Amino acid sequence: VAPAARGLADDAAVVAPPLGNDLVATHDMMAEGVHFTPGCPPDDIGWKLAAVNLSDLAAMGARPLAALYGAGIGEGRDTGWAAAVARGLVACLDAHGCPLIGGDTIRQQGPTSLALTALGHLPHGTALGRGGGQAGDDLWVSGTIGDAGAGLAMALGQQPVVGALLRRYRRPTPRLALGLALRGIAHAAMDVSDGLLLDASRLAEASGLSAEIRLEAVPLASVLARTQGAAQAVRLAAATSGDDYELLFASPPDSAAAVLAAARASRTPVTPIGRLVAAGPSLVLRSADGPVPLPARLGHLHGG
Amino acid sequence: VAPAARGLADDAAVVAPPLGNDLVATHDMMAEGVHFTPGCPPDDIGWKLAAVNLSDLAAMGARPLAALYGAGIGEGRDTGWAAAVARGLVACLDAHGCPLIGGDTIRQQGPTSLALTALGHLPHGTALGRGGGQAGDDLWVSGTIGDAGAGLAMALGQQPVVGALLRRYRRPTPRLALGLALRGIAHAAMDVSDGLLLDASRLAEASGLSAEIRLEAVPLASVLARTQGAAQAVRLAAATSGDDYELLFASPPDSAAAVLAAARASRTPVTPIGRLVAAGPSLVLRSADGPVPLPARLGHLHGG
Repeated sequence: VAPAARGLADDAAVVAPPLGNDLVATHDMMAEGVHFTPGCPPDDIGWKLAAVNLSDLAAMGARPLAALYGAGIGEGRDTGWAAAVARGLVACLDAHGCPLIGGDTIRQQGPTSLALTALGHLPHGTALGRGGGQAGDDLWVSGTIGDAGAGLAMALGQQPVVGALLRRYRRPTPRLALGLALRGIAHAAMDVSDGLLLDASRLAEASGLSAEIRLEAVPLASVLARTQGAAQAVRLAAATSGDDYELLFASPPDSAAAVLAAARASRTPVTPIGRLVAAGPSLVLRSADGPVPLPARLGHLHGG
Repeated sequence: VAPAARGLADDAAVVAPPLGNDLVATHDMMAEGVHFTPGCPPDDIGWKLAAVNLSDLAAMGARPLAALYGAGIGEGRDTGWAAAVARGLVACLDAHGCPLIGGDTIRQQGPTSLALTALGHLPHGTALGRGGGQAGDDLWVSGTIGDAGAGLAMALGQQPVVGALLRRYRRPTPRLALGLALRGIAHAAMDVSDGLLLDASRLAEASGLSAEIRLEAVPLASVLARTQGAAQAVRLAAATSGDDYELLFASPPDSAAAVLAAARASRTPVTPIGRLVAAGPSLVLRSADGPVPLPARLGHLHGG
């Protein structure tokens, strides 16, 4: 807990956002049996709760200011388990320069449910959003897609465990440095939490446009391609699974050099995967062989 | 949901705090079976969640800026029930000028648990806290004490229902206007949520002083005195029950006129109940007949 919490002696914490900055606020919850399995290591649960909230700040281009943690500790969980969740949470917050300034911990009946409020800041009027995309913009995505979906299948015992992919599911990386670097470059941005195709259709809808995605361009982790191949079915599974916490963003074609410079500066790989066009449904999927019918399910709705 | 949430289209909400203001943040949770009974009217549950968080802002002297709501809706609760909770929450926020700008609603196993983050603002460096009390300060409390404790006994079926007292338990009033008016006057302040005696001992401890409370001075609601009398046992029960959400504050004797003017301006009654002294235990209780032994339990620890 940071100094602003005044040792939790007061009723509320006080922080001073930089002068003239806007405040960005997000609140995501995770419940046992819904967003994490009872057997998940507690420090990973805490890490992920922090990461999914910081990812929302990243999507807006905000710098973390402070966080407040709400823990409803379920029956049958001891204080050691609850402390391990909190340690994982603070480890992720610390890694991204976000002080924990307050919160509430209660005992509750039934399973555990956890909540985090993350506060960020940015210069007035510079927040990225989903609705700013323009026709002709390129669509880009950071990192690789589908790792966490494969990791979830491993956590559920449906696939042999590949440590790197399970870790991507349990300990996602919020793309804060990239989000900051994209301010003033990207027209629109969001984080990919519920599946790339579903989230791309949302960005297109918010911008009043159509998203065209080239399936072969969707970046797969080399370990995923090595273990599962890169057939169209694998790419479709990757593009419709959740929990990636990568950034999806739209920027004009003449900003490509600036986008690549932002990616280098933030040490975050980015890949162009399609574009926004004026006419058409919210999502169109193509491969080198022509249009690809949309799968029945574009994403995974439990994500944060 | 307020315009800042941009129709919930984006990953996070954006608000602009007034230039040069500090931000005040608090997060309190309420769980079914712990903080509210399964049979409590859902709009009262929502109201109370908002009120207990706004009360923390009031204690700091902050003006509400925005709130984020996290609802973990339990098994067996339908969307109508969840909507009624949200209506009660928004009714209380609206009544106190606090826009709801975001949050998260999930379905969870077991009973319902709810969380609110309330954000407030105040001029830099003016936040009230618990630790600022000085020896010789008078201790004051707003409103009346023990109403909610009697209301809780009624909610549990332990006492015949008196509507006004049950309402004080289920729909507390955050003392925001008084908190604002006390900035620059009070040395220390907090809200009384866990019992007047327990909270007074906390304020004294945070200030490194001793609190002397005159039991006869503790203000009782007329309806409470009428139905239960004002014997010492009734006063002790009132001063050790929770959920009052009144403000307890310390201010120098020569500020009494300013305190009374602040009370008038905020239409909130206040009563002097004792003082802070340099030496002694954190809490000393007196009556006209002399020292009163402290009860075994100074308060009620489930409160927010």
